[in-house]
Parts: sequence; structure tokens; C-alpha cells
Amino acid sequence: MPLVRIFHPAGHDRSYSSALSKGVHRALVSAFGVPEDDFFQIITEHQAGTGLFGPDEFLGIAHSADLVIVQITCAEGRTADQKRALFSAIAGNFGTDAGVPEADVVINLIETRRENWSFGNGEAQFA
Amino acid sequence: MPLVRIFHPAGHDRSYSSALSKGVHRALVSAFGVPEDDFFQIITEHQAGTGLFGPDEFLGIAHSADLVIVQITCAEGRTADQKRALFSAIAGNFGTDAGVPEADVVINLIETRRENWSFGNGEAQFA
Amino acid sequence: MPLVRIFHPAGHDRSYSSALSKGVHRALVSAFGVPEDDFFQIITEHQAGTGLFGPDEFLGIAHSADLVIVQITCAEGRTADQKRALFSAIAGNFGTDAGVPEADVVINLIETRRENWSFGNGEAQFA
Repeated sequence: MPLVRIFHPAGHDRSYSSALSKGVHRALVSAFGVPEDDFFQIITEHQAGTGLFGPDEFLGIAHSADLVIVQITCAEGRTADQKRALFSAIAGNFGTDAGVPEADVVINLIETRRENWSFGNGEAQFA
Repeated sequence: MPLVRIFHPAGHDRSYSSALSKGVHRALVSAFGVPEDDFFQIITEHQAGTGLFGPDEFLGIAHSADLVIVQITCAEGRTADQKRALFSAIAGNFGTDAGVPEADVVINLIETRRENWSFGNGEAQFA
Repeated sequence: MPLVRIFHPAGHDRSYSSALSKGVHRALVSAFGVPEDDFFQIITEHQAGTGLFGPDEFLGIAHSADLVIVQITCAEGRTADQKRALFSAIAGNFGTDAGVPEADVVINLIETRRENWSFGNGEAQFA
């Protein structure tokens, strides 16, 4: 039940955005055991320097205009190891499939209760 | 103290967006007991297939290009029954007022502490 | 490790948006002790009356077309006093630097576990 937000820089073609989309989803399936068809994403593009900001460097990691921010709202309960696996898989997929430097992949998870989701028909399918 | 995000497909007129806005708010008032004037929303439209994604089907529920995603940040403490009532009311309102198939209404709640809100003047009105 | 979202009305120039950006960051550094180079923000502009909504008045505080909404996802653990200081600093900075009425500054915090963040390289730097 993740809801994925991807914020990426403007100026790329649609295949880039599609690669990011698929890269996050594949990582969720492999690291979090999310079902293949549990696929809800909102993707927006933003101008570097006005809409999407990162520092030149944080924690010794340099950032460029290629910065992509991913924010995933998901059910609570994954272990720290699963989160590590997710982060690693997303950054790896972004690098391989979309040419994003792994340094420029910033990810945040927001965890919520399972009863906090409706996947249609006005029902709380996991309450 | 909800902050409502509505992500809907592009290509509809303003009355559609307004109906979604009012539909969520009316549901929050009835199901969560939110005050009428506690009304903070950010609504954006997104291209189906590039900006706003859902699966063809998940949990046996089919999705179309009419998919609307609602994410509500609110105070913690509502019961599962209140959440069920909220989901049902939002989907019902969307169907009745904006013609959105109830299958295409996806909702997520993020709960936060009451002290995590400022409604103006730099004060934490519920701390 | 905050991720800052700023939603402001359209129709202002870039110096306005930049002032909001810096105003939130300066407040996070002073009130939450966030490192100077821990700076990740996504800023979007929205049409008042269609994209960004607030009530005429809530809790006795009047709102205008100048309404700005700030949503900050951050690590859990700050005290209520730190949150009060943050809200006060953001509203003060917005008023001084961007001419936003302090009544029109609405802020929400979403707190997450420290292990829920990756700041690059696919690693969970705070796990």
C-alpha cells in the first residue's frame, strides 16, 4: 500500500520519468514485498534552483542538478534492514535505468497504520 | 486540523475540481467532526499515464483514467470506524457530485500529533 | 533531515519564493538545530481559489489570498517548545522577508523515524 511521490528535475524526456517510476516500483516489490499491482504514484517535475532544492553537499555527499527526491507513504512495520534494501535498490535502479548519480537520490518514508488506506469503493481494505 | 491534498486527472473543468474539494471537506465534517471553517486544501491536476499512476486492478478493484488520489494529514486519534466512515463519505460524494467511479477513489491518511500544527501567527494552537 | 514543502500563491516574483525558502531553512537551523547544509525543499506555486484553499477565518485568525502552507517532514523527537520556536521563526521570517501576513502562515510537521531517510548513495545514513 505505498503511495509514491517522485520529484524530479524538468527537462528530461518521458522515458526518464518512466524509468524512475519503474525503478521505485521494482524496488518496493523486491525489498518490501509489495504486490506487483499495488502501484500508485504521483510524479512531478520541478525546475532546479527554483522548485527543487538540495545542498551542494550534505554528509559528505555532493548533489547536482540531477537531484531526485522520492517520498513514499507506506504501511508501518518494515525493518531497518528492509528499508536499507529499499534505498539501495531505488538508487541502483535510478543509476542503471535513468543515469541518475546515486549520490543524487534522496528518499524519505512516511509510515502509517494499515487502517489508514482506502484502495477504492470507499472501503478500508486493511482495517 | 486536516491538510488535504487532492491529485486528480487533468482535462476536467473547474466545477469538477470544486466538487472534489467540497466532497472531501463535507466528509471530514461529517465523519471526523472537523469544524466547517477548518478548511485547508491543495489541489493539483496531473496527466494520466505520466503524472498520476494507478494499476489496472488491485485487490480486485479496477482503476481507470478517472483515478483520484486523496492524501489527508490530520490529527491522530480517530477510530477505525471513523476512518471507514470518512472513506465511504468521500467516495460517495465523489461519485454523486463529480461522476468519479467509487472504485477510482484512493485515500490515505497521515496522522500527526496535535502540537505539530500552526494555523497562523506563528503559534501552535493545539500544543 | 527535514524535507520541506512550500505551497505559495502564484503571481509573485522569484525573490518572494526565494525568501520563503530561506525563511524556512533559517528557522529550522535556529529552532531545530538542523545543519546548514541539510537543505532539501520542494516549492510549488498554486492559484488561489482553485489550487490553494484556506478558510476566510479559522480559530479567529483571518486568511487572505496570501496564504502560504508549509509542510515539513522531519525526524521525530523535537519538543513542543522547539516546535513553537520553529513556527514563530517561520512566520516571523515570512513576514519580514516576504511580506506575508503572519496570520497567513500555516505549518504542519510530519515526524518520522531516523532510519526512514536516505540522503544519497542508497544508504540509510541515520539507521
